[in-house]
Amino acid sequence: MRLLSSLLSSTNPLPHHFNFPLRNAFSFQFRNFPRLFSMDSSERSLRNALSLKQLAVEAQGDAVRALKAAGAAKAEIDVAIEALNGLKIEKASIEKQLQAVVSGAGGGDGALNRESFRQAVGNTLERRLFYIPSFKIYRGVAGLYDYGPPGCAVKSNVLAFWRQHFVLEENMLEVDCPCVTPEVVLKASGHVDKFTDLMVKDEKTGTCYRADHLLKDFCNEKLQKDLSISSEKAAELKHILAILDDLSADDLGAKIKEYGITAPDTKNPLSDPYPFNLMFQTSIGPSGLLPGYMRPETAQGIFVNFKDLYYYNGNKLPFAAAQIGQAFRNEISPRQGLLRVREFTLAEIEHFVDPEDKSHPKFADVANLEFLMFPREEQMSGNSAKKIPLGEAVSKGTVNNETLGYFIGRVYLFLTRLGIDKDRLRFRQHLANEMAHYAADCWDAEIECSYGWIECVGIADRSAYDLHAHTEKSGVPLVAHEKFAEPKEVEKLVIAPVKKELGLAFKGSQKNVVEALEAMKEKEALEMKATLESNEEVEFYVCTLGKNVLIKKGMVAISKEKKKEHQRVFTPSVIEPSFGIGRIIYCLFEHSYYMRPSKAGDEHLNVFRFPPLVAPIKCTVFPLVQNQQYEQVAKAISKSLTVAGISHKIDITGTSIGKRYARTDELGVPFAITVDSASSVTIRERDSKDQIRVGVEEAASVVKDVTDGLRTWEDVWSTFPHHVSASTED
Amino acid sequence: MRLLSSLLSSTNPLPHHFNFPLRNAFSFQFRNFPRLFSMDSSERSLRNALSLKQLAVEAQGDAVRALKAAGAAKAEIDVAIEALNGLKIEKASIEKQLQAVVSGAGGGDGALNRESFRQAVGNTLERRLFYIPSFKIYRGVAGLYDYGPPGCAVKSNVLAFWRQHFVLEENMLEVDCPCVTPEVVLKASGHVDKFTDLMVKDEKTGTCYRADHLLKDFCNEKLQKDLSISSEKAAELKHILAILDDLSADDLGAKIKEYGITAPDTKNPLSDPYPFNLMFQTSIGPSGLLPGYMRPETAQGIFVNFKDLYYYNGNKLPFAAAQIGQAFRNEISPRQGLLRVREFTLAEIEHFVDPEDKSHPKFADVANLEFLMFPREEQMSGNSAKKIPLGEAVSKGTVNNETLGYFIGRVYLFLTRLGIDKDRLRFRQHLANEMAHYAADCWDAEIECSYGWIECVGIADRSAYDLHAHTEKSGVPLVAHEKFAEPKEVEKLVIAPVKKELGLAFKGSQKNVVEALEAMKEKEALEMKATLESNEEVEFYVCTLGKNVLIKKGMVAISKEKKKEHQRVFTPSVIEPSFGIGRIIYCLFEHSYYMRPSKAGDEHLNVFRFPPLVAPIKCTVFPLVQNQQYEQVAKAISKSLTVAGISHKIDITGTSIGKRYARTDELGVPFAITVDSASSVTIRERDSKDQIRVGVEEAASVVKDVTDGLRTWEDVWSTFPHHVSASTED
Repeated sequence: MRLLSSLLSSTNPLPHHFNFPLRNAFSFQFRNFPRLFSMDSSERSLRNALSLKQLAVEAQGDAVRALKAAGAAKAEIDVAIEALNGLKIEKASIEKQLQAVVSGAGGGDGALNRESFRQAVGNTLERRLFYIPSFKIYRGVAGLYDYGPPGCAVKSNVLAFWRQHFVLEENMLEVDCPCVTPEVVLKASGHVDKFTDLMVKDEKTGTCYRADHLLKDFCNEKLQKDLSISSEKAAELKHILAILDDLSADDLGAKIKEYGITAPDTKNPLSDPYPFNLMFQTSIGPSGLLPGYMRPETAQGIFVNFKDLYYYNGNKLPFAAAQIGQAFRNEISPRQGLLRVREFTLAEIEHFVDPEDKSHPKFADVANLEFLMFPREEQMSGNSAKKIPLGEAVSKGTVNNETLGYFIGRVYLFLTRLGIDKDRLRFRQHLANEMAHYAADCWDAEIECSYGWIECVGIADRSAYDLHAHTEKSGVPLVAHEKFAEPKEVEKLVIAPVKKELGLAFKGSQKNVVEALEAMKEKEALEMKATLESNEEVEFYVCTLGKNVLIKKGMVAISKEKKKEHQRVFTPSVIEPSFGIGRIIYCLFEHSYYMRPSKAGDEHLNVFRFPPLVAPIKCTVFPLVQNQQYEQVAKAISKSLTVAGISHKIDITGTSIGKRYARTDELGVPFAITVDSASSVTIRERDSKDQIRVGVEEAASVVKDVTDGLRTWEDVWSTFPHHVSASTED
Repeated sequence: MRLLSSLLSSTNPLPHHFNFPLRNAFSFQFRNFPRLFSMDSSERSLRNALSLKQLAVEAQGDAVRALKAAGAAKAEIDVAIEALNGLKIEKASIEKQLQAVVSGAGGGDGALNRESFRQAVGNTLERRLFYIPSFKIYRGVAGLYDYGPPGCAVKSNVLAFWRQHFVLEENMLEVDCPCVTPEVVLKASGHVDKFTDLMVKDEKTGTCYRADHLLKDFCNEKLQKDLSISSEKAAELKHILAILDDLSADDLGAKIKEYGITAPDTKNPLSDPYPFNLMFQTSIGPSGLLPGYMRPETAQGIFVNFKDLYYYNGNKLPFAAAQIGQAFRNEISPRQGLLRVREFTLAEIEHFVDPEDKSHPKFADVANLEFLMFPREEQMSGNSAKKIPLGEAVSKGTVNNETLGYFIGRVYLFLTRLGIDKDRLRFRQHLANEMAHYAADCWDAEIECSYGWIECVGIADRSAYDLHAHTEKSGVPLVAHEKFAEPKEVEKLVIAPVKKELGLAFKGSQKNVVEALEAMKEKEALEMKATLESNEEVEFYVCTLGKNVLIKKGMVAISKEKKKEHQRVFTPSVIEPSFGIGRIIYCLFEHSYYMRPSKAGDEHLNVFRFPPLVAPIKCTVFPLVQNQQYEQVAKAISKSLTVAGISHKIDITGTSIGKRYARTDELGVPFAITVDSASSVTIRERDSKDQIRVGVEEAASVVKDVTDGLRTWEDVWSTFPHHVSASTED
């Protein structure tokens, strides 16, 4: 325990992934700050030109007024006015150019397009009950959403695939721990003390705001809307945006005061910023004496079970444990819809590995993958993400180790198989100032959507931090053992203070001196040994006394002894891929959504191009017209689909077939079976709208094959006769 | 709204399923009180005989002492002592008989056997990490448990089957709502005011206990251990046990005082009982002004979404919504392991139906099922549960309606397919005093385990209560519409108070009188009309004034008018099957567990006979001996199993094959593939230990077929050659 405590006490540890996954969604744009901070040169010259032109306009205005006051000739005054107007036109032209530049950089038309796209997706999602603001009839609660039927189906499909892709294929140990967590656990992890955001209050109404959000909004607003600010001022504001995440409460408070920022709703003055803990607090049991929290992440449940899980795995490393479950963060003022919520589903993996061997036996399976990576160096030098083969990234040391690389590859496969667009997915490495001191390396899978690049999966090599923290707090050693094939002879440093002598010399301070001697590192101890042998005494700084003491030869024995060791005892490193399921699903909604004109061209139809894997319903069954015979066929096919385990819907309303197709396209249903005869039916594919003709008996099994991925649509398209519909499609 | 409020205000509504599913686990034994209350006649006569014999012993003892004091002859004294001893022997014999009787009724040997069985199951479950006390390294928290890897797999299999069996097969609308719930929702449902248990505190230490538990423990202890109590006293204690659930705080407090019950741990005096709300409370957002709770059930999330879901279903009834999720109850002092926990998974269905038509189109599919049912009447007359065909139970009115009956049948199929023993499963109807006043009928699926009969699923017809409550509180009408094919002419009562006359007559009380007149039921109003026509005036009681007033003819016009109506607007009834998933899983563990001797007969081996559907791992793959060729075959089979989606484990340790079988039997793995050649392998079935020989290529698909239920083991057993192992099995 002495070793561990000295390791830990020398640092100021950050709790477990403070930044992931729902706290820094907006900060993506400030992280790669070298690029943003170095203001675009055209912007700088335009801002400078605008300032000069403004001065010229003012000077000419003064001149005109002076001429008028002096009663100058009308002709002279007219010339001066003409010059003034000319300057104003020039100024307006520069303003227009500047507006275009700053709009292109994040506001303006691009933002408007993103906003209207987001609204179109959002409207479709809410109208079809993919999600619903929770407790809507009671006016809802910010940051809480329900998944309605299709959203719930998508979510359970995503989770089922996650379980298949990670837990089953990698033989992970899945656990399921409660959300209610006693304080001691989250004290050990650091969350009780440090899981906070800085908050300011409207001094009159008490309304709370996130301090960094207000400052950020102020800066963005100024930069995008106020063209009169100087290029120096603009640079200052951009610098603040760049370092926003690193600002202390005092810094934030000072800036808020300096800029005169007030409460957005009331314009009232604001309090100084102070930390607000983001955990929902509660009390366990009736006594009120056992404080508890709703867990802010699922990982702690795995760490506290390490000992049992290691035993379950036959005391062998490496192994991974996994957990899917709810997590809670009492956000100060949630924005960004489904991306920043107060309760969400996490899926987390903790892969425990020997710190001396982070190779992965299956790395070769992913080494040839090539996708957008955004290493630290590229961010610092203002470049963009670029395609790098994963094998190269690991062999060149860009990615710290094979196991981390393996998970990056597996995450890439997971996300793209769900339907995430690979061109809007990048793996961004944390900058040095973003990473906890103990972390060996950390990469976020970021997905681009209308809100920007959103971190959806964090993949971190957290070294031994978490197991250390719980070992320290609980007193239960969370360690692994490596038995040596043959005992090994090792040299060990032995520091033996002679308490009698020390007691005589230092009396009440003896204990401090003994502890300081025992805590010496090997190098320091050997130097002391040498000095004592030559000088008989040595000055020694005891930090708990705050002064030097004089150590004499008889007061401590320092030696190196040889010992036989049968095993190595060590704390495993943990490599942690952590998935924000709700964020992935929201990005998937945006990536899957598109509009196409109706056949008549008079309206836009909404489509979600979900792959069958995630589609909420795999297939719909329609009788072409209301007719008892067709209905019977439809019901028989429905029965076969149920037996085959294919979720589907049967629609026997008399609505036109075009409308029925449109309805199911909007839910992302990939296939539709239309019954237009008693012997054969058509199967329509959602995106191509192509139709094939298949016998009634075969219909369910064809849909099952393409849904389960046993056959592709191209394959069945080339096998079955095509059906050309003149009238049925919209 | 007037109609609704008068409906509701006339009652004292109980919140949503107050008794289900985790609050009355112990109470099962008291519910069928007529049976228990009417003391067994042999017990009564034995208690009486014992009292008499005790008196006789005392009298004879007095006689002996008197003889000795009087200096009687030794022979005379010896005769008296012999008589005393004879009486004592007779008394001991009666005590023994009585002990046997009371033991048979719940304590004694039966309890001991149940206790040791429970320990054997529990040890195996904990050792193999089916479950783990949560936060064990921090000494745990009562009522919180983790599922370890095999438990977690069983749970996710149970939930996947639930989704298949209910949501997919019935086309239910699944939703997923947050656990964090604002107060207003749970105020409407009644939980804020009434979701309480009665608690007492140790007056010195502050330790809390459930008041009813202490009284129950006292009564049971007395009845089972103290043979000297009179048969009257025993009857009294049994009566208390029978009515325990109905006792008020005052009644409980009086009994605790009367019996001198003290704190079990310290013997300190106890406080009076007072209600403790069982919800975990928290605060939403940073202001501290929005109180919230962790939901005590998932149902409310469905009710508040009724309007959207009804719309999603095309404004058609009936339809069902479903939700799987965590629920929370801050139990005062959780006991009974996995059966009474502070956080648990519920799976709930709310089936919305027209109150005028509760028929079910698929009832015929379950009508022929026959299983143990325990109707109210049978419980009252002291009989046992008996097998009744479901169709008969509904047609005779034992079960209120077809829809309720349909769900009872579906629940029976669900539980038995999971592996619940049908002879230890019964459907028990709620007694009149157990049911909420609004409920039409309610049946619990109770499963017998070592803790007794445990309610695991509640199936209730809750009529319109929940939708009414939220309509009332939110002001949003949660109603359904039935459009008439043709407008219907209806007669409607119209009560028109004449405010001017009433104002003159009643001044400040006018409003109370108007409201009371408008609130009259049809019958009362028509009687008033008749009286006014004959008598010109009538006495009328206004409850808000607490007195009669005199209504004269001109003060109110009462008439019946004919109106054309185009639709009927009504609040749907809800039929709610609600599943305590953790309880079902625990009972499944007990029903699946058995021991068999090892081959050598020197030890007991533990087996879980899980059906493949729920088994945590479907198959293990072993090379018979450590050998590279066999290992390669094993790995190839493993790969095929992964492709087929069969969860499995490969074990290439050198452990003896018998031990490896024993290990997997203990996890309930149904099949084991042993590689003992390069061309063919054996497949062993867990319970019979029978083995067949199958070609390497076929192995995975045979296991898939029997696992997916496409073939039975009997079927493959008759298809493939049998393998007789001399040495491999234990």
